[in-house]
Amino acid sequence: MKARVTVTLKTGVLDPQGKAIEGALKSLGIEGVESVRQGKVFDIELAGADRARAEDALKAACEKLLANTVIENFRVEIGG
Amino acid sequence: MKARVTVTLKTGVLDPQGKAIEGALKSLGIEGVESVRQGKVFDIELAGADRARAEDALKAACEKLLANTVIENFRVEIGG
Repeated sequence: MKARVTVTLKTGVLDPQGKAIEGALKSLGIEGVESVRQGKVFDIELAGADRARAEDALKAACEKLLANTVIENFRVEIGG
Repeated sequence: MKARVTVTLKTGVLDPQGKAIEGALKSLGIEGVESVRQGKVFDIELAGADRARAEDALKAACEKLLANTVIENFRVEIGG
């Protein structure tokens, strides 16, 4: 079973990396960029076919390792 | 207009960071993880309401800066 976990910074948390990318895009002449926030994505392959169990395992993975829940939100999507 | 750009490693490209995360998840007792690949996500706020133009700008941004197209794929999703 495939799953995707997306980890993004919470609103209000400063993102200097995103700011730097925004500046770089502007200096490259890409027009219309108002803001950039960078996050992480994890494509995870899981054994078994129990979606509920997979979701629980992935939530535990996010809380223990993949996301810093003080400053980051995470989202778990389970595919086919 | 909001857009999300997802950059992931192409199939076959080694991902030592993903491997390290996979090992860490196993040692934390998260069961059923077969593989992990890490990528990047960019949440971009764009001026204007022309979707086609926004998509062109974002593709240019990916090719010039956000993705290394030799080893990475990118995907552009334009929201509301």
